Amino acid sequence: MTDQSILDEIKTLKEQSFTTKRVVSPALEEILYDILPVLDHGFIRVIDYMGDDASVVQAARVSYGKGTKKISEDAGLINYLMRHRHTTPFEMCEIKFHIKLPIFIARQWIRHRTANVNEYSARYSILDKEFYIPTVENMAGQLSSNRQGRGDALPVEQAQELMRILREDSERVYAHYQASLNLNEQGEILDPEKSGLARELARMNLSLNYYTQWYWKIDLQNLMHFLSLRADSHAQYEIRSYAEIMLDILAKWLPLTHAAFMNYRIGGMSLSSKGVDIVKRLMKGEQVTQETSGLSAGEWREMMKNFM
Amino acid sequence: MTDQSILDEIKTLKEQSFTTKRVVSPALEEILYDILPVLDHGFIRVIDYMGDDASVVQAARVSYGKGTKKISEDAGLINYLMRHRHTTPFEMCEIKFHIKLPIFIARQWIRHRTANVNEYSARYSILDKEFYIPTVENMAGQLSSNRQGRGDALPVEQAQELMRILREDSERVYAHYQASLNLNEQGEILDPEKSGLARELARMNLSLNYYTQWYWKIDLQNLMHFLSLRADSHAQYEIRSYAEIMLDILAKWLPLTHAAFMNYRIGGMSLSSKGVDIVKRLMKGEQVTQETSGLSAGEWREMMKNFM
Amino acid sequence: MTDQSILDEIKTLKEQSFTTKRVVSPALEEILYDILPVLDHGFIRVIDYMGDDASVVQAARVSYGKGTKKISEDAGLINYLMRHRHTTPFEMCEIKFHIKLPIFIARQWIRHRTANVNEYSARYSILDKEFYIPTVENMAGQLSSNRQGRGDALPVEQAQELMRILREDSERVYAHYQASLNLNEQGEILDPEKSGLARELARMNLSLNYYTQWYWKIDLQNLMHFLSLRADSHAQYEIRSYAEIMLDILAKWLPLTHAAFMNYRIGGMSLSSKGVDIVKRLMKGEQVTQETSGLSAGEWREMMKNFM
Amino acid sequence: MTDQSILDEIKTLKEQSFTTKRVVSPALEEILYDILPVLDHGFIRVIDYMGDDASVVQAARVSYGKGTKKISEDAGLINYLMRHRHTTPFEMCEIKFHIKLPIFIARQWIRHRTANVNEYSARYSILDKEFYIPTVENMAGQLSSNRQGRGDALPVEQAQELMRILREDSERVYAHYQASLNLNEQGEILDPEKSGLARELARMNLSLNYYTQWYWKIDLQNLMHFLSLRADSHAQYEIRSYAEIMLDILAKWLPLTHAAFMNYRIGGMSLSSKGVDIVKRLMKGEQVTQETSGLSAGEWREMMKNFM
Repeated sequence: MTDQSILDEIKTLKEQSFTTKRVVSPALEEILYDILPVLDHGFIRVIDYMGDDASVVQAARVSYGKGTKKISEDAGLINYLMRHRHTTPFEMCEIKFHIKLPIFIARQWIRHRTANVNEYSARYSILDKEFYIPTVENMAGQLSSNRQGRGDALPVEQAQELMRILREDSERVYAHYQASLNLNEQGEILDPEKSGLARELARMNLSLNYYTQWYWKIDLQNLMHFLSLRADSHAQYEIRSYAEIMLDILAKWLPLTHAAFMNYRIGGMSLSSKGVDIVKRLMKGEQVTQETSGLSAGEWREMMKNFM
Repeated sequence: MTDQSILDEIKTLKEQSFTTKRVVSPALEEILYDILPVLDHGFIRVIDYMGDDASVVQAARVSYGKGTKKISEDAGLINYLMRHRHTTPFEMCEIKFHIKLPIFIARQWIRHRTANVNEYSARYSILDKEFYIPTVENMAGQLSSNRQGRGDALPVEQAQELMRILREDSERVYAHYQASLNLNEQGEILDPEKSGLARELARMNLSLNYYTQWYWKIDLQNLMHFLSLRADSHAQYEIRSYAEIMLDILAKWLPLTHAAFMNYRIGGMSLSSKGVDIVKRLMKGEQVTQETSGLSAGEWREMMKNFM
Repeated sequence: MTDQSILDEIKTLKEQSFTTKRVVSPALEEILYDILPVLDHGFIRVIDYMGDDASVVQAARVSYGKGTKKISEDAGLINYLMRHRHTTPFEMCEIKFHIKLPIFIARQWIRHRTANVNEYSARYSILDKEFYIPTVENMAGQLSSNRQGRGDALPVEQAQELMRILREDSERVYAHYQASLNLNEQGEILDPEKSGLARELARMNLSLNYYTQWYWKIDLQNLMHFLSLRADSHAQYEIRSYAEIMLDILAKWLPLTHAAFMNYRIGGMSLSSKGVDIVKRLMKGEQVTQETSGLSAGEWREMMKNFM
Repeated sequence: MTDQSILDEIKTLKEQSFTTKRVVSPALEEILYDILPVLDHGFIRVIDYMGDDASVVQAARVSYGKGTKKISEDAGLINYLMRHRHTTPFEMCEIKFHIKLPIFIARQWIRHRTANVNEYSARYSILDKEFYIPTVENMAGQLSSNRQGRGDALPVEQAQELMRILREDSERVYAHYQASLNLNEQGEILDPEKSGLARELARMNLSLNYYTQWYWKIDLQNLMHFLSLRADSHAQYEIRSYAEIMLDILAKWLPLTHAAFMNYRIGGMSLSSKGVDIVKRLMKGEQVTQETSGLSAGEWREMMKNFM
């Protein structure tokens, strides 16, 4: 399928217009089916959705009609539900995405189990020649003080050399993938006398930066849980890039829920029992140091980072 | 809230009309928000939905546009997916119900865990005086040959006597429920000097035939699993009454999926390894009896019941 | 089955002793199979378990042997995992309970979906005559300032009158339950010429304070989530009574995980984005009042309650 | 960690012996912690388990002691539960594995969502140089008649040539992986003046045949569902190799459940509504052909394949 035929298909979908008695999110309708680019070849597309802010209220109230009459009441109840971690009303909205992402990110992503997924199958079909190469500024060094984190960008020359190798390797394994399938570069059969290697085997030579794609459907509560972990500064840059686009989508879809989520989750933090004690002492006007806090040096450092 | 105000709210919802780029099921739109009665006071209402038959195909193909171009291709693929138990494409459609049902049925229902639920809370709110009394013909005797099943209807006189007792007890516990809440029959405060018993405690005197209600949202795959168990002849009559209405809803919503489901699930059966051997022998023209079948008497009886 | 025969069965189980290469929790073995009483007729019994504190570490490290060599390292890693909400290592331990509880509490309990449940079936079997009556001091009034909460105990006389009614109603519906099943008080057939009402129908006249029982199996992560909600002061007293026993069980089973859980979850709290700002200002020595806090009066009151 | 140190750790675990009141599976204890090899570098290890055949019966009965007194009764009830798809009693047993497997198989595997997983993290740690190369006889060609299946083995020469390329590419990407991490072949720092690329990025150049490992814990019901799909002849050879070892483990662990599973699931099949009609006609002695069957050619072919 050529790129143009894809764009034509999307255009057709965007031009369709139906009438419905269901609730509608006008701002989300605007971007429905659009390709929202992420990284060098990835994207997020919103394919379908169910519910709006009032649906959360309606479910919390188990009401016959809409939840409440006024937007201010809806906002108040949504804030209350978010603050007190009443999760089930937020499960009443649902959204479906079409996502293209590198395989190593897909492997992180899929650990979120409470979603529905249909992935493009490389047992049936042939993967496209599309692989992820970070930009120079994203070629980060290992952060030695933390075995997981990503440190500063590598020197440009070193970064470019590593990118060149990554690109060459990616090109080479795709050429070998095609050859093992008995295909030439144009995807045509190479030797009609021969059989190609089974697709389910040939794929194993591709590297983890190759792109895959899937349909991913999730309810609002689990989407927010995903975003609270993946839009976080500790998340890997590549998956965070997807999460940030999704935060924008959330703002369009459910403005009241998005505002409550930003206040209580994304910008919030958890205090331990010892942390609560420290704040109590602070509120009484006491001075507290690490030594007098009851926290370990590491816990104190983490807490201070949040309060500075 | 009076009954009329509920009907007015529903009327308002049914009269609203929005435009959407999302796929739409015209037959389901027709009955959206309607009260579909079940048993003496129960109902099912469809509140929202996501997807149509083409969405199943689209997800199975991970395609950019609709799944296929022709309805006959869609039907073929849906049949294939159903036959081979490819379940994930069916997870891509979602439906949300508002349901009113007796508590003892709600307890069976909730055992299906892969759904989202918001139930009317008797900790916060006061339950209405609505309880289930079976019709005379549904006052069935215990089936002695099977410890679970329901046998023939009881003699009319015995049934009516038991119904009378059930009704009286239901009336009495509601009167005591109101009194313990310090309310009179009209729901007004009885004695302004007194405090009523906490709602979360008062409710425990109500009986299991009292009605509760909830919002229940589920994906198509899990809905079909629910229906395959609860629309079955072994399911309790009361829950089956709900399941049968849902089968009608499914037929309106997704006609191709409904047809495949009726053929491969509802009307189908499972054969054990020994059962497969028996059919093989039959196909070769052999006579097979219980003695020569390798099945126990009970297994043979069950198998024959399905094939007679 | 008489009470004595139950006690004999439990004694037999407790006397059995096997050798195993699996990890063992000696303190939990001590109370295995025991009836730990809750409320007037309820109980919790631990039937089986899998894993210990080291299993959490082992899974987090994906190690071949045990996780680490020293208990202090295990404690440090478990604290780290709990603080940073790394949930999957805690899913690697599992526990199985046999629980007897009033039906209205079972209905709250079952909303936790990520557990395995087998409930005693009143479609097959006849329920025992056991129902919950609160103690006088637990007959609490409705808290008017909060539609959900439970306030102070009712005056003794009012409480006793309501308890008498509850007891009488419970006795009466059980007598009618037995009669509808064509049984006398001893559970013998009343009239051999008659058929009783099907059990699946007869049960609907029982009230929500009747006891049911089930096997309930859950992983450690989801158990802690359950306990963080149900051992909380906002939980209904009756379910909290079960949760508190379970906290004791957790302390015996996994002392390091229990300590981390008590510090970071049970005794901890969440701060919103605005709450973080307030603490920042406090740490700089500023005075903060509700007016200058950016919080609504309700939010401020909730926050102050936690810090006083 | 060297191979010998791993073997020593396992030896230590196998030598430990504790006493427990929990039920024990003696045959499974025999192989606990052992490395059961799969493919060229993979393995399955059983790390822990909970329950035995009697636990299934005990949960189905919600009994105080063991389920029944006699093994023959247990077998009968387990067969009944399996035949009638009563799934919850089988959820009461649990097993935990340590598994090493190629990444492209891990991606298939993880689609089973109802399990607990902790995977070795290539964000934190450096992957070993271990990659999967199929044996010559497993280098199968693409089955043209079915877009998914694997056909006959490729000619030996072609297979060996493709294996050589796969091996070379795998070696090269690992060398580049190490170099990008600023490590030499021995895993030592190459240039102390330089920083290596972040591990979370470097990994993306590795190919999908590299081995990963994880702890995987699942209940018996979901394990059987996994096995019914992955031990099936349509499953990819590589994942089937793991599933077959797990079937052996199941036979040791729960012999009665294993026997029922083999009869009712693995060796069984589903009949559609139309398929039931055909068997009915066969049992009456009728001849049925595709033309008179009501089945499409494809459905008929599939059905006949099962009955021949």
